[in-house]
Amino acid sequence: MATVRLLTDEDLSPEANAVFADIRATRKSDFINNFWRALAHDPVTLKRTWESVKEVMGPGVLEPKVKEMIYIAVSIAHACPYCIHSHTANARAKGMSEEEYREVVAIVGMASETNRLVTALGVPIDEEYEVR
Amino acid sequence: MATVRLLTDEDLSPEANAVFADIRATRKSDFINNFWRALAHDPVTLKRTWESVKEVMGPGVLEPKVKEMIYIAVSIAHACPYCIHSHTANARAKGMSEEEYREVVAIVGMASETNRLVTALGVPIDEEYEVR
Amino acid sequence: MATVRLLTDEDLSPEANAVFADIRATRKSDFINNFWRALAHDPVTLKRTWESVKEVMGPGVLEPKVKEMIYIAVSIAHACPYCIHSHTANARAKGMSEEEYREVVAIVGMASETNRLVTALGVPIDEEYEVR
Amino acid sequence: MATVRLLTDEDLSPEANAVFADIRATRKSDFINNFWRALAHDPVTLKRTWESVKEVMGPGVLEPKVKEMIYIAVSIAHACPYCIHSHTANARAKGMSEEEYREVVAIVGMASETNRLVTALGVPIDEEYEVR
Amino acid sequence: MATVRLLTDEDLSPEANAVFADIRATRKSDFINNFWRALAHDPVTLKRTWESVKEVMGPGVLEPKVKEMIYIAVSIAHACPYCIHSHTANARAKGMSEEEYREVVAIVGMASETNRLVTALGVPIDEEYEVR
Amino acid sequence: MATVRLLTDEDLSPEANAVFADIRATRKSDFINNFWRALAHDPVTLKRTWESVKEVMGPGVLEPKVKEMIYIAVSIAHACPYCIHSHTANARAKGMSEEEYREVVAIVGMASETNRLVTALGVPIDEEYEVR
Repeated sequence: MATVRLLTDEDLSPEANAVFADIRATRKSDFINNFWRALAHDPVTLKRTWESVKEVMGPGVLEPKVKEMIYIAVSIAHACPYCIHSHTANARAKGMSEEEYREVVAIVGMASETNRLVTALGVPIDEEYEVR
Repeated sequence: MATVRLLTDEDLSPEANAVFADIRATRKSDFINNFWRALAHDPVTLKRTWESVKEVMGPGVLEPKVKEMIYIAVSIAHACPYCIHSHTANARAKGMSEEEYREVVAIVGMASETNRLVTALGVPIDEEYEVR
Repeated sequence: MATVRLLTDEDLSPEANAVFADIRATRKSDFINNFWRALAHDPVTLKRTWESVKEVMGPGVLEPKVKEMIYIAVSIAHACPYCIHSHTANARAKGMSEEEYREVVAIVGMASETNRLVTALGVPIDEEYEVR
Repeated sequence: MATVRLLTDEDLSPEANAVFADIRATRKSDFINNFWRALAHDPVTLKRTWESVKEVMGPGVLEPKVKEMIYIAVSIAHACPYCIHSHTANARAKGMSEEEYREVVAIVGMASETNRLVTALGVPIDEEYEVR
Repeated sequence: MATVRLLTDEDLSPEANAVFADIRATRKSDFINNFWRALAHDPVTLKRTWESVKEVMGPGVLEPKVKEMIYIAVSIAHACPYCIHSHTANARAKGMSEEEYREVVAIVGMASETNRLVTALGVPIDEEYEVR
Repeated sequence: MATVRLLTDEDLSPEANAVFADIRATRKSDFINNFWRALAHDPVTLKRTWESVKEVMGPGVLEPKVKEMIYIAVSIAHACPYCIHSHTANARAKGMSEEEYREVVAIVGMASETNRLVTALGVPIDEEYEVR
């Protein structure tokens, strides 16, 4: 279920249509996933979000697949099944091997455990970690 | 503040002492951070946790600094300041550049935004993401 | 799936029945949503929760639709699809326009991003924010 | 830092004062912890919250210390250091041994790990868990 | 503690300096809070974030103080003390009364309780909430 | 939907098969729930996780049903429906009565409310809670 209807290409405002065109051109694919179809009700947020994602996930110093791994990790910790599925698919499409994926999942699990152990015990930050 | 006293080397049980010795040998450093000093009240959990962390964060297909970046991402999403500080320090020690760190932070921020947009709108998972 | 059966009107204890009657009278509607039907196994918690919700969401200084917007925001951040759907429906029923809804969603997304950026960087609270 | 001043006994409205009197009588102690002193700015919420806590944490089928252990677990997962400290102190005051506390902490850590592994992998609920 | 040094006006790159100038002009105040001083290490993210915040929190259909209330709600659910303090201060500066603030806090608390009750019981979404 | 295929007994590597055999022997039941079938793609993580769970949830000072109650509480706060369903089923199988279950759910709800109230108000930790 969703709180808004998913828009088809025929439903789009000209502003949303322009964003979809850029998504297709950037990704070199005709496929537009449901996230953008839901967000298209709000062309201003659609445009800002797409441009921000394009900037953040675009070329940089980290490999594209590493960027997607970090995205997966955050999506798991935020309990967002859609996000997990879409970014796991993206990461695989960008070259993440199944062995790498297994390590990502294991790290997220381990970090979750030690995060909560630290929080449980109220561990004070070591001064060695101070940034000057 | 903490819910248990941090143990000094003098306070340790023989079992906890053995784990500290392995931490020092593995890391080739005498420094033991507060997490382990708090966890040392429970030598069984201390040992299991350390061995799990050593396995998960040890040699694998992902670079050590990438593993730490994923750890940072999870720690941010779980709102654990201690974990963020310790793993950011670890990542830097393992070669994460400041430019890479900026990308990690930007991705975590962006993922948090789109995670919550997706959740807000109840976006259904595209069948294209199905794994067979 | 649910961890308890949803109770029909015929299944209710007299105590739960009285709460359902008050929900119907307060809302001037016969419809009882699934939340209350699941909670009805525990008439004490049902009654306390309904009375608390009635007090908190009842007449006050904030407009009813604004109260629902805040409820939506919290429900998104807690990753509760049921809560998001029910309170988005409530907010619309209480007059939230689609334009207002789009602003709510955009704010929740933006706040999520800056929340995590702040947490990532461990930003110390400015003394200007101190309350005396 | 806090977003409101903590109220002293001299600052209280008559309504808040009555709640503090009931807290003291119920707990058989003069000590009022900071949570109630912050909440006292809103006597309606103070009264509702105290009465709800008294109902939920009062005599029932679960032992008082077990109730506090569950409270600790939730507080850790919500990353609330104040709540963790106050309920860990409460649990100890109600008889939780250090050995029991170590088990609570270990379970919370373990559950956090498997929770995130399950979420990462999108594990579908087994029909064996269905309630009829 | 923070994971980066807070930048003073003297430390800024020209790009960061331009963003600070726009923050000051937009807010008609010389004060730059620590969030921007931490983010200024990354002028690209600084600029994108500021422009996004300006767009989302700028003039719209919701009152400025209502926008801040939603920001507060999200910040509480994400356990971000800095964000809570800064947006509570902002909301008060934009006219939120103490009575309104008390209602915001009470709603966030109540929503948190019912969110987790719903999640605990696995309540299925009523078809009445479906959007067509 | 899931991000990996669930493995049948026929799909298992020898290492995963050995873990499944130990799960069956330990639980005295042939049933293997989906979590392990998803995790079985990674025999190393499967083995480590199962052995950790066996250690943490095995005989100790807390009753088995109390351990499961704590697991349920954490799973709710992490918004993991699978985990909630499996551990609620486990707790019932280990003797949790419906009355006890109702208390668990009510405590989780209440704790969630006061956790967020405390966080909202930024309540400072009382020095009475200090551990020396």
